[in-house]
Amino acid sequence: MTLIGLKAEFRKTVTETDVVLFSGLTGDFDPLHIDEEFAKKTIYGRRLVHGALITSFMMTAASIAAQAAPEFVLPSIGLDRLRHTGPVFIGDTMTVNYLVTGAEPARNRYTADVEVKNQRNETVGIATHIFKAIPL
Amino acid sequence: MTLIGLKAEFRKTVTETDVVLFSGLTGDFDPLHIDEEFAKKTIYGRRLVHGALITSFMMTAASIAAQAAPEFVLPSIGLDRLRHTGPVFIGDTMTVNYLVTGAEPARNRYTADVEVKNQRNETVGIATHIFKAIPL
Repeated sequence: MTLIGLKAEFRKTVTETDVVLFSGLTGDFDPLHIDEEFAKKTIYGRRLVHGALITSFMMTAASIAAQAAPEFVLPSIGLDRLRHTGPVFIGDTMTVNYLVTGAEPARNRYTADVEVKNQRNETVGIATHIFKAIPL
Repeated sequence: MTLIGLKAEFRKTVTETDVVLFSGLTGDFDPLHIDEEFAKKTIYGRRLVHGALITSFMMTAASIAAQAAPEFVLPSIGLDRLRHTGPVFIGDTMTVNYLVTGAEPARNRYTADVEVKNQRNETVGIATHIFKAIPL
């Protein structure tokens, strides 16, 4: 059995609430994320969503994809070439697409392509997810 | 002026509350993180902390380091070779060490080495953080 082709889509409007809760949970109070007046003076013009929150939503998509393989646990090994290719602002709606595309049977590893687009179909994030498959 | 040498340490006990709030915030309800009875039957034996939460704490360390360079905004470009090198369990205390080690002046990019250790001094996460520096 192969996990290649396993996939998921995860859509979400990223709200101010998400950004506030994420700041409090992680302790990342960078003014670019929590200080509207500061953010106004930067090239962004307003508060940015934390890149790590977008990365976290990528991993939510991975978890959703994993539901189709309940005979395994699929722990994350990590990410390669994670890039925040565009800013995400409060109110943006992102669509995460997750697709398992590669296998390395000798090391029991799989790789998945992850892409995040905003409501204007602009790619705002990409990564390669690496995980292993452990039979339950 | 160079940002090389900029650094931060961020320590935190990762509590059940963190894991519960992170699940609710991200929508990542993978049973490995939220179902103790399921987790007991896996090789881990108990609930695992989300890797994405540890990654988020890496970025908190980056934000703390950035406080020493208030003349710039330092938006993240991404991460290279992020690896969860060991499991993190509820109750573990992690120490994130963040150090800017590289510069690519032509592309206005910097790189930082990030390492996360647990209370037994085991490395549980590593990554290379890539960011740019935009003068305010």
